[in-house]
Amino acid sequence: MQAPRGTRDFGPNEMAARRGLEERLRNVLRTYHYHEVATPAFEELELFLAKSGPGIRDEIYDFKDKSGRELALRPELTAPTMRFYFANLKMEPKPLRLFYFGPCYRYDRPQAGRYREFWQLGIELLGDETPNAHAEVLRLALQLFEEAGLKNFVLRVGHLGILRALLEEAGVKRADQAPLMRYIDKKDLAALEKALQERGGEKAADTILRFFQLERLEELRPLAASPDAMTAFQHLESTWAALAALGADMTRVRIDPTIARGLEYYTGLVFELDAPDLGAEKQLLGGGAYDLSGVFNEQPIASMGFALGFDRTLVALERTQVPPTTPGRVDVILGALVPEAWPEAARLAQILRKSGRVVELESQPVGIKKLLGRASQIRARHAVFLGTKELERKVVAVKDLDTGTQSEISAAELASKL
Amino acid sequence: MQAPRGTRDFGPNEMAARRGLEERLRNVLRTYHYHEVATPAFEELELFLAKSGPGIRDEIYDFKDKSGRELALRPELTAPTMRFYFANLKMEPKPLRLFYFGPCYRYDRPQAGRYREFWQLGIELLGDETPNAHAEVLRLALQLFEEAGLKNFVLRVGHLGILRALLEEAGVKRADQAPLMRYIDKKDLAALEKALQERGGEKAADTILRFFQLERLEELRPLAASPDAMTAFQHLESTWAALAALGADMTRVRIDPTIARGLEYYTGLVFELDAPDLGAEKQLLGGGAYDLSGVFNEQPIASMGFALGFDRTLVALERTQVPPTTPGRVDVILGALVPEAWPEAARLAQILRKSGRVVELESQPVGIKKLLGRASQIRARHAVFLGTKELERKVVAVKDLDTGTQSEISAAELASKL
Repeated sequence: MQAPRGTRDFGPNEMAARRGLEERLRNVLRTYHYHEVATPAFEELELFLAKSGPGIRDEIYDFKDKSGRELALRPELTAPTMRFYFANLKMEPKPLRLFYFGPCYRYDRPQAGRYREFWQLGIELLGDETPNAHAEVLRLALQLFEEAGLKNFVLRVGHLGILRALLEEAGVKRADQAPLMRYIDKKDLAALEKALQERGGEKAADTILRFFQLERLEELRPLAASPDAMTAFQHLESTWAALAALGADMTRVRIDPTIARGLEYYTGLVFELDAPDLGAEKQLLGGGAYDLSGVFNEQPIASMGFALGFDRTLVALERTQVPPTTPGRVDVILGALVPEAWPEAARLAQILRKSGRVVELESQPVGIKKLLGRASQIRARHAVFLGTKELERKVVAVKDLDTGTQSEISAAELASKL
Repeated sequence: MQAPRGTRDFGPNEMAARRGLEERLRNVLRTYHYHEVATPAFEELELFLAKSGPGIRDEIYDFKDKSGRELALRPELTAPTMRFYFANLKMEPKPLRLFYFGPCYRYDRPQAGRYREFWQLGIELLGDETPNAHAEVLRLALQLFEEAGLKNFVLRVGHLGILRALLEEAGVKRADQAPLMRYIDKKDLAALEKALQERGGEKAADTILRFFQLERLEELRPLAASPDAMTAFQHLESTWAALAALGADMTRVRIDPTIARGLEYYTGLVFELDAPDLGAEKQLLGGGAYDLSGVFNEQPIASMGFALGFDRTLVALERTQVPPTTPGRVDVILGALVPEAWPEAARLAQILRKSGRVVELESQPVGIKKLLGRASQIRARHAVFLGTKELERKVVAVKDLDTGTQSEISAAELASKL
């Protein structure tokens, strides 16, 4: 029997690497004063339909429980987190900084780097939509990858306010923009050009397509002609300056006007972070300012968030030879050479464990050769053993497995001398 | 919208308490050289049917995926872990020590302390069935609760070898024992007595029921008359001695011949750990020696494991006033009094974060009163602020929120002096 198609088991080495990365990311989130929250692995199906539209149903694990309730394994964690926020956290003082880390599920053809069970770490900043606050979110995104040890990554930043204003100038009303935004999201420029020509004529198509070639902030200013586009541009410009003030390596940050994020609920600043080394599956993080209050029939709350693909980040680290966290080394392997010495070996094992050492205690009396064999198998640092003589003299024999030297230590001093 | 019936959302305080307990338990597992493994949240339904029988289907979330595959959210983690072991880990050197921590699912009427999504932490020891190794597993179980801070708990230990031998002597063959084991597991002594009288007569019923009153190891010896029962008794006796040698507080350990563990795959030593303060839902941990090799059509491997109910352990800690881990305190709240000072505040925030401090940076220029209001809201230790004068003189004002004193510190020395 195997794990179900598209899912994975993780062994000791993989889990050590995963927990190691998780811990590094948690430490960064902590220093930015983000608080962890958690929601169930499944939700009412309706939650995801309301957020992402009926099309999502084909891509998720949905099922009925024994009482006929329509449930779905969560495909992402922003909708559940905002459900929780509106139900229980909306009276908390603002700004409120939340993060989550957990598995998500999609029913999708498994392929390299794409699994049916995958992990996301993400944040939601609630109640602050100033450029400085948005810049801090971008700085946090960068720092997560810096602390993870990734060498090569690029943060691309856009603003839907500029994009939408330009589409409107090109004759595509806000209500008609959805299909064009999807072409933009999929980088299908041919389809986009055709649609623009149909709606706004040749000139409109030219303006938009020119806009898509831009990579520097200053190049956007002349295009932001309408008041809406100018407001958006100024927000982007202020965010940019604040991001530099927050010490971001600006050589890793680009303007990318082509980020559309595909979904209707994004409202302003949007961004994606890539590891170019990964090819087609290069995007490690995506996010932006959004408004999901309508889904919950609630008052709007300034919201910005991102989700980081944990599995893909691990692959990116591996590809760039960042050494993963490995299982902790065994500090001591302890063996009794005769049955009468086992209780003393057991007692010493517990003292060493209490002092935080990783200890393996041989369960049966063991010869020195066998003990050293196991010691090398589990990469122990020290082998400690005792027979009748050691027991009488209240000492133990200690072999340092790195240097090969052997010494005798009084049993009473073992924990302090090792 | 709410979390689905029987499931829960966890806010910042709850997650801090949960992660705090998880970390304490992980630290103990580490010192015993257990390695974390992980398996998917769902499995082929067949895995759980093969392990626990068709009856389990009524109690689990089972569903078909879009290709008709019959899947089930895992109700427990031993079957998935052993599936993984036989598929990928069986060539690892023995003894092999594995642990897992994650959510499990049951379709059950939600009631106080029983949820449809609940967390289990558990271990499997593979390849060592000596009494000393079993004692180490029991010692580990006790130490998990000691380190968690629980004051009042009892470990009950039994041996199915003794119970099964006695049932056999009482005229109930191994193949007919299953229904009786279920009565025993449910502590339904009336049903058990009736079944025994039907099968073995009055005397058999008396022997078994007398056996059930015993609480001390020595009282079991005279009852262990058959060779099988004596072998089992000796295993229990040796385990007991080794547990004492491992420093267990033996006032917390009892003999309990009534532990049947309900399921067919348990083979020998069995145990349960209770927090008596919790009443009906008092059991926090259960486990024993088992054999699941038949389910996977594999060679037998000596196996012992336990699962700890993480949610119930948290309740037990709460009831006994063990203070939970709370979200980390904010070390510094940083504010610029004028817009020109914000970049310097941002720069200092990043330096403090790099040194590991938890920092909130006000995104907008802020008055001192408002800054101190937010500082008290988030329980910050220090408020740091700077206006035009501080900016010119390259200093910051620091208010210690615990003592109320205010001082000036050079910006260059902020991280080292705070």
